[in-house]
Amino acid sequence: MAGFSCSAADLHPLLGTAANAIAAAEYICNGFDTVSNKLVAATYAIDNTYLLFSAYLVFSMPLGFAMLCAGSVRAKNTMNIMLTNVLDAATGSLFYYLFGFALAFGSPSNGFVGRHFFGLEKYPSPSGDYSFFLYQWSFAIAAAGITSGSIAERTQFVAYLIYSSFLTGLVYPIVSHWFWSTDGWASPVREGHLLFGSGVIDFAGSGVVHMVGGIAGLWGALVEGPRMGRFDGDGKPVSLRGHSGTLVVLGTFLLWFGWYGFNPGSFLSILKTYEHTNYSSYYGQWSAIGRTAVTTTIAGSSAALTTLFGKRLLTGHWNVTDVCNGLLGGFAAITGGCSVVDPWAAIICGFIAAWVLIGCNKLAEMLRYDDPLEAAQLHGGCGAWGIIFTALFAK
Amino acid sequence: MAGFSCSAADLHPLLGTAANAIAAAEYICNGFDTVSNKLVAATYAIDNTYLLFSAYLVFSMPLGFAMLCAGSVRAKNTMNIMLTNVLDAATGSLFYYLFGFALAFGSPSNGFVGRHFFGLEKYPSPSGDYSFFLYQWSFAIAAAGITSGSIAERTQFVAYLIYSSFLTGLVYPIVSHWFWSTDGWASPVREGHLLFGSGVIDFAGSGVVHMVGGIAGLWGALVEGPRMGRFDGDGKPVSLRGHSGTLVVLGTFLLWFGWYGFNPGSFLSILKTYEHTNYSSYYGQWSAIGRTAVTTTIAGSSAALTTLFGKRLLTGHWNVTDVCNGLLGGFAAITGGCSVVDPWAAIICGFIAAWVLIGCNKLAEMLRYDDPLEAAQLHGGCGAWGIIFTALFAK
Amino acid sequence: MAGFSCSAADLHPLLGTAANAIAAAEYICNGFDTVSNKLVAATYAIDNTYLLFSAYLVFSMPLGFAMLCAGSVRAKNTMNIMLTNVLDAATGSLFYYLFGFALAFGSPSNGFVGRHFFGLEKYPSPSGDYSFFLYQWSFAIAAAGITSGSIAERTQFVAYLIYSSFLTGLVYPIVSHWFWSTDGWASPVREGHLLFGSGVIDFAGSGVVHMVGGIAGLWGALVEGPRMGRFDGDGKPVSLRGHSGTLVVLGTFLLWFGWYGFNPGSFLSILKTYEHTNYSSYYGQWSAIGRTAVTTTIAGSSAALTTLFGKRLLTGHWNVTDVCNGLLGGFAAITGGCSVVDPWAAIICGFIAAWVLIGCNKLAEMLRYDDPLEAAQLHGGCGAWGIIFTALFAK
Repeated sequence: MAGFSCSAADLHPLLGTAANAIAAAEYICNGFDTVSNKLVAATYAIDNTYLLFSAYLVFSMPLGFAMLCAGSVRAKNTMNIMLTNVLDAATGSLFYYLFGFALAFGSPSNGFVGRHFFGLEKYPSPSGDYSFFLYQWSFAIAAAGITSGSIAERTQFVAYLIYSSFLTGLVYPIVSHWFWSTDGWASPVREGHLLFGSGVIDFAGSGVVHMVGGIAGLWGALVEGPRMGRFDGDGKPVSLRGHSGTLVVLGTFLLWFGWYGFNPGSFLSILKTYEHTNYSSYYGQWSAIGRTAVTTTIAGSSAALTTLFGKRLLTGHWNVTDVCNGLLGGFAAITGGCSVVDPWAAIICGFIAAWVLIGCNKLAEMLRYDDPLEAAQLHGGCGAWGIIFTALFAK
Repeated sequence: MAGFSCSAADLHPLLGTAANAIAAAEYICNGFDTVSNKLVAATYAIDNTYLLFSAYLVFSMPLGFAMLCAGSVRAKNTMNIMLTNVLDAATGSLFYYLFGFALAFGSPSNGFVGRHFFGLEKYPSPSGDYSFFLYQWSFAIAAAGITSGSIAERTQFVAYLIYSSFLTGLVYPIVSHWFWSTDGWASPVREGHLLFGSGVIDFAGSGVVHMVGGIAGLWGALVEGPRMGRFDGDGKPVSLRGHSGTLVVLGTFLLWFGWYGFNPGSFLSILKTYEHTNYSSYYGQWSAIGRTAVTTTIAGSSAALTTLFGKRLLTGHWNVTDVCNGLLGGFAAITGGCSVVDPWAAIICGFIAAWVLIGCNKLAEMLRYDDPLEAAQLHGGCGAWGIIFTALFAK
Repeated sequence: MAGFSCSAADLHPLLGTAANAIAAAEYICNGFDTVSNKLVAATYAIDNTYLLFSAYLVFSMPLGFAMLCAGSVRAKNTMNIMLTNVLDAATGSLFYYLFGFALAFGSPSNGFVGRHFFGLEKYPSPSGDYSFFLYQWSFAIAAAGITSGSIAERTQFVAYLIYSSFLTGLVYPIVSHWFWSTDGWASPVREGHLLFGSGVIDFAGSGVVHMVGGIAGLWGALVEGPRMGRFDGDGKPVSLRGHSGTLVVLGTFLLWFGWYGFNPGSFLSILKTYEHTNYSSYYGQWSAIGRTAVTTTIAGSSAALTTLFGKRLLTGHWNVTDVCNGLLGGFAAITGGCSVVDPWAAIICGFIAAWVLIGCNKLAEMLRYDDPLEAAQLHGGCGAWGIIFTALFAK
């Protein structure tokens, strides 16, 4: 937001022909330049405040996943899963700093992988400041948390550590490059030769984050097979219930809390006016950000209630873990389109997401697929629905 | 904050009679208009950032209530109470979006109930943006959390769901309309015919939120009667202790954390100068907001210490749950007057709130009234004291 | 940020000699004055928003310490330690309001102790607003949380209450006066007669907060001696394991979360341009703040991984509590220099911090020193290394 570009050369002839007209014009233009520079600085301060605190909010998501994992496994396995969750954040931070960010956003680059800013060398650059790095870092370690639960209770620690580093340092960054980097082959802001003529809109990552996490979880859970005792001798599923509904609720609320950084924060800045509206109170980026928080809330709530009643019909029980999973499924689904749909459409998004989740649960039981935190069903299935939903309902 | 309204018609005669004086005046005024428009946009961005993050802070309160509930009931009842807490948030979100916000703030309307913006239709409007909706929504679901504990351990799930929806979608919105809508019959900003000549000041809701929640809790607990075993055959109270002091502390701290969104956030904006002070560093809305955070902190702390020593005198024990309840009672009491009292007065507010709470506890035991989370005592009693305190100590 | 100081006396001779030139100059200067005043107000609003939300973030640290304590002690001792944690915050708030802030920042004063603003009398002043008080208050109660764990499981409640009040109301404020007040004898911004010619840089408190907390913990643990059963008859250490790794992880993540208020927030404001850079996107206080969040993240992560593998080598086990302590040690070490080092140096900071912590652990066992939450090792030892690190690596 550059303020007013005052030109003394334009102004002074208007002020008259006297010698001091030049001085007058320079005096006035100097005033405008000073004020405009202050406005630029204020804009940086506001946008960086917005983005930094959004990144901090997102950082409550790894904690949310950790608590969700802790509550969803049996008590004897909590220490092991807690260790993997802490290390997802710690190794993820180092690997994303060393490699991941460069592979994702190291422009200029080709459409497949970035190649600058390894270890933040020559960063910040005109393409972004530390706050942008931090925001993307918070996404990377939140994404790492998605998969940790899929392979809970049956994974060797060292194997997991390698898998997690590989995911945060390599796989996730490269996929996010494709869709979110200005150079990515599927990016909607790429210059020239856009995919489908428009690129792919995946605003906050129904695909880039949730489907990637879900697929990684699917793959991990398939490789490892079900937990001992999850299916009996006849292949009938046996419920291995988590040991603490309270921790599941704690984790779910922390994720809900963090999602307000994840979705509305993905605008990356808040001080931007939308041109045709003459700065009315209800149309600028601040307003679109608020609407995004609303659609996020509505989709999750709608999915939670649908799951509550849907599962009641199917199983005869009211179950808090199901409701929490439904809520998260609604969030995963709205993530792609949260910024471009109306609040009423978010009700539909959540409603279908709940049935997608219930369907995936059924399918998993039929296929003897065991994924303690339902990453593949919840993030993979609902994330996929989110992409379809975005295509159907984007304004 | 509109910047400077430059008038070329006023300026050009001052610049001389030459033909180009008009052009010069227009050039300069165009500069001021541009800069002023940027300032307006910056103001929206700052105030929306402030209000959105305040709403997110308030959103840690439903989680706080959930953890407080979980810790305060016996282990066997945690799953049930967790389900009600998650659903308070999920159904509350949907109902407040569909009906509640319209009933509360759907102006223009009569003094008793609002009638626009159902399902956010034709919203945002000049009366407010999405950030205002989100802030009010966060209050509504925080209010829903107050009552859930009162009727813990003895409520049928479906009955509770109806009760909760009714409260968040209908009762709370209508009461908040009376006091907080510009049209409300008890509002201090209503035009003409003010109640008592001034309307009622209830800044962040000692009455609107806490007393309403407390009364709903009272009513619920009276209807249901005490838990089995809470009073023995002779009517003597038997302590039914919660299963986890750690969860009680977790919940209490989360509520304390959220209260910084609840009270200071109720200013709704931060960029507002107070006229007579010429922009000094210590007098603008930012300063009043800071003072509000201070009075909130002091009142809670003062009540916590008073409860600690008061209960020690009366029972002979040091008890962490009592201290947590005292802290929350102090917060409930300061909520009404937090923005209009001095920090030293907050010490008095908290001191009395603690004794009000202790008195209500005694009364409840005498009357065989059982309210596991003390909603009626804590939110009702201390909230009522908060309204009296505001009337006595408001500057 | 004062905007543009327009002088009608300077401008009007430039506009010509006619009578109305004065009026024209006054009209234009009035425009600049109005705009500049709005910019000043916007600056206060932005900086106060930044500082208030940083203070709220820091406030998640006392909760983090509480959860860490709860998880690190045996189940039977949780109620007692929870009570001390809640009271650290409540008494700390009152004592810091009444005495602590005045002793720390009550300038003008001598180099050893402040002497104004008791009970916030005559505050806010030109030296600071309520947001500054709140930020310092959040530090004080976070510091109180450091020591509570050192003397867990063997301290009389009343003794602890006195010890804690003394620490928050007297010791910590006086030490922070020395280093952080503009009048302090060791302050780097003192006028004249600087210590070592430069004063001591301790940006966010490796020394002022962590070493002070660590030393208080050391002293407390020495006075009380080890817990019963911590060393057997032959003086060999016996592990007294905490009862919940999940709570340890919850506490650690909450502390990590809060550290983004603690370190980047210590800049106190975000809207400040660095002169030689002409408002480029990557150099202003917002950029330095972002870099500080990055160095904090990297140091903690590096220390966590070093501890993981270091302890594995030494003990043969992978242990989540060790990793959490390592993480916190890395944060304690980077706190002093976080704002003046490069991200790559933060890797070294964390790496050494981990070995300092491991060394201190060994030493403590040899000396039969028992400190359940390792405050002396973690905050004292790593904090001391942080001061050395800052001296070595500051740019």
